Amino acid sequence: MTSVAIVYHSGYGHTKAIAEAVNKGVASVAGVTVHFMSVADADTQWETLAKADAIIFGAPTYMGSASAPMKAFMDATSKVWFTMGWKDKIAAGFTVSSAQSGDKLSTLNQFVTFAMQHGMIWIGTGMMPGNSNSKGSVDDLNRIGSATGLMSQANADQGVEGIAASDFKTAEVFGARVAQFAVKNAA
Amino acid sequence: MTSVAIVYHSGYGHTKAIAEAVNKGVASVAGVTVHFMSVADADTQWETLAKADAIIFGAPTYMGSASAPMKAFMDATSKVWFTMGWKDKIAAGFTVSSAQSGDKLSTLNQFVTFAMQHGMIWIGTGMMPGNSNSKGSVDDLNRIGSATGLMSQANADQGVEGIAASDFKTAEVFGARVAQFAVKNAA
Amino acid sequence: MTSVAIVYHSGYGHTKAIAEAVNKGVASVAGVTVHFMSVADADTQWETLAKADAIIFGAPTYMGSASAPMKAFMDATSKVWFTMGWKDKIAAGFTVSSAQSGDKLSTLNQFVTFAMQHGMIWIGTGMMPGNSNSKGSVDDLNRIGSATGLMSQANADQGVEGIAASDFKTAEVFGARVAQFAVKNAA
Amino acid sequence: MTSVAIVYHSGYGHTKAIAEAVNKGVASVAGVTVHFMSVADADTQWETLAKADAIIFGAPTYMGSASAPMKAFMDATSKVWFTMGWKDKIAAGFTVSSAQSGDKLSTLNQFVTFAMQHGMIWIGTGMMPGNSNSKGSVDDLNRIGSATGLMSQANADQGVEGIAASDFKTAEVFGARVAQFAVKNAA
Repeated sequence: MTSVAIVYHSGYGHTKAIAEAVNKGVASVAGVTVHFMSVADADTQWETLAKADAIIFGAPTYMGSASAPMKAFMDATSKVWFTMGWKDKIAAGFTVSSAQSGDKLSTLNQFVTFAMQHGMIWIGTGMMPGNSNSKGSVDDLNRIGSATGLMSQANADQGVEGIAASDFKTAEVFGARVAQFAVKNAA
Repeated sequence: MTSVAIVYHSGYGHTKAIAEAVNKGVASVAGVTVHFMSVADADTQWETLAKADAIIFGAPTYMGSASAPMKAFMDATSKVWFTMGWKDKIAAGFTVSSAQSGDKLSTLNQFVTFAMQHGMIWIGTGMMPGNSNSKGSVDDLNRIGSATGLMSQANADQGVEGIAASDFKTAEVFGARVAQFAVKNAA
Repeated sequence: MTSVAIVYHSGYGHTKAIAEAVNKGVASVAGVTVHFMSVADADTQWETLAKADAIIFGAPTYMGSASAPMKAFMDATSKVWFTMGWKDKIAAGFTVSSAQSGDKLSTLNQFVTFAMQHGMIWIGTGMMPGNSNSKGSVDDLNRIGSATGLMSQANADQGVEGIAASDFKTAEVFGARVAQFAVKNAA
Repeated sequence: MTSVAIVYHSGYGHTKAIAEAVNKGVASVAGVTVHFMSVADADTQWETLAKADAIIFGAPTYMGSASAPMKAFMDATSKVWFTMGWKDKIAAGFTVSSAQSGDKLSTLNQFVTFAMQHGMIWIGTGMMPGNSNSKGSVDDLNRIGSATGLMSQANADQGVEGIAASDFKTAEVFGARVAQFAVKNAA
C-alpha cells in the first residue's frame, strides 16, 4: 500500500472541511492508505510521517501566510530536516481564505519552499483555471485558478456552508491527483 | 507639480484599459501630472522617468509572471540601477489575467523585488478584500482581494467588455491612492 | 518625535543581536524615538505600535519562512487589520539564517505581503549588493546582496560571535535608512 | 532512454557555463539522453521538448527575475499550455547572478510557478546548505544554500573564471539528481 498523509491546521473548521474533501479524493485511489491528522496531533505521528510516501500540507492563509499553528508544526520538522528524513517524498499543499485571491499563493509558495528544504518533490493541481472566460462560473473546477496547490475560498461570516460546492469537488480531484502520482512514484 | 508615470505593457488591450483607469485615478488628485506610456515607447522616456516622483508598473500575467515585453523594459532599467537613479521614488504595480487568482501575486511580487532593487518605496492597494463574505459580490471594490498591488481579471474570450465594472473602479481608487502618497512624499 | 518600533523574535540570540544593530541605526537619526520589543512582549505593546510611524519586523528564517513565534504575533495583528489601524505606516523587515541565501527572501516576501495587507508602505535596503565582484569580500556592506530587506547570516554552530562585522554594520545603515524615511514621511 | 532537456538563456556566458555543468551531471546518469538548447534555438525544438521526460530551465537573474529572453521563451510555451502538453513531466531550474543571494530565489520561484501552470512535477536540489557553520567555506557544495533550485554566483567583473569551482560541482550533482528522478519516474 502507498501511504499518503494529510497534515492540516484549521482555525474555524473551513480548512478541516476542505482537508476532508482532499482526503476523500486520496482515498478514492486504489492501493492507497490515508493518514489524516491535525497539527495538534502531528506530534505523535512522526513515525507515520516518516513512512509516508506523500505528505499533503494544508492551512488557512492568515495575514498572508500559513497560520501560526501550522508554522509551529513546520518548525518542529527541523529535526527531520537535519537527517533529510523526508527526502524524495511527494509533497503538495492547500490553503483557504475568505478573499478570492487574497495572498493564498503566498502560503502555497511557503509550502513549496518548506518542501524543497526537505528535499521533497512538489506536485500541483495540474488543472486549467476555471471561471476565466464568458462561459465560466463559480461552479467550475478550480474556479480560483490555482496551479501550485489547491486554493479554496470560504466566506468570512459563514461556516462550512459558505464554501462553494465546486471547491469541495476541486479538492477531491486534487487529492486523487496527488495520490495517483504517489502510487506511481512508489512503484 | 508631482509627477507620476505609468509604464505598462498590454498584449490584447485589457491591461491598457486597466492602465487607463489607473491613469484616471492618478489624474484625479490635485497637483499631479501623469505620464502614461507603453513599454514600446518607454525607450524614449528615460528622462521623464528620471524626473518622476512615482512610477506605476503594469503588465498582464503570462505563464505566471510579467509578460516578456514588460520584462525587457525591466531589464533595460539596469543602466538606471547602476547609478541608483530611481532610489526613493514611489513604486506600485498592477496586473491582469483571465484567471481569478491565477498567479497574479507572482507578478506583483516580481514588481516588488524589482522596485526594491531600485531602492524604491512600495505602496499597495490599502484596501480590504471585497467579495469575501455572504453579502459580497463581484461588484465589490477589490473583488479579487489583493493587497500588494492591483489585480484585475479579464475573460480570456472577450475584449475589454469582459472586465467587471468593479475592476475599473478599483483601478481608479488605487491610482488615486498612489498619487496621494506621491504628493505627500514629494512635499 | 517620530516613533519607530522594532518587533523581533529571536530563538538563539542571533536575531536579537541583529535587531540591536538595527536599533542602533534607528537611534542614530535625529528626532526619532525607538521602541524595541520582542514578540514575547508585544502583547502589551499594542498602543505603542498603534502610535508608531514605522514598524520594523525581524525574525529568523526557520524552514523557509518566519519563525512560528513571529507568525503568532503576525496572526494576532488581525484585530488591528480589521480596522486598518496600521494603514500608511512605514514597514521594513530583516531576517537571519545560517545559510548564505537559504530562503531568506521567502521570509522578507512574507513580511512584505503582511505589511501590504495592513496597508503599510514598504522600504527596503536601498543598497547595492556587496561581495559581487572580484574586488568584493564578506567585509562588504550588504554582502549577502539583499534589496527587499536586511539579510544577515549566522553560523549554525556559533553564537553571536559567528556573525560577520559587516552584517552588524549593514544592519545599522539599514536601520538609519528606515528611520530617515519615517522622519520624512511623518513631516 | 529517458530524455532530459536543458533550456537556458545566457547573456554573458556565465549561465551557459553552469548549464554545461548541469548537462555533465545529467549525462552521467545511465539511460539518459540530454538535449541541450539555448532559448535562441528552442523555437525549433518543440518536438524534442514534447517528448522530454524532464525539462530543466536556466537563466540569469536580471533585475530580480528571469532574463527577458528566457521570459519570451516561457510566454511562447502558452501554446503548449493550452493543451497541457507538458503535464506530469519533471521540471527543475537554475539561476546565476553576481550577488550572493540577490533575489535568485525570486527567479527560482518564477520557474516553479511556470512549471506548475504546465502541470509539471518540481524537484529541487535535495542538498543541505553549505558554508553555514564555522567549518564551512565557499568550497562547500551548495555554498549559497539553495533548496528550490540551483543557485550559482558569478562575479560581475569577470567571465567564467569568476565562478567558484564549488558552483560547477554543485551544478553537476544537481543535474544528476534531476536525471535520476526522471529515470525513476519514467520507469
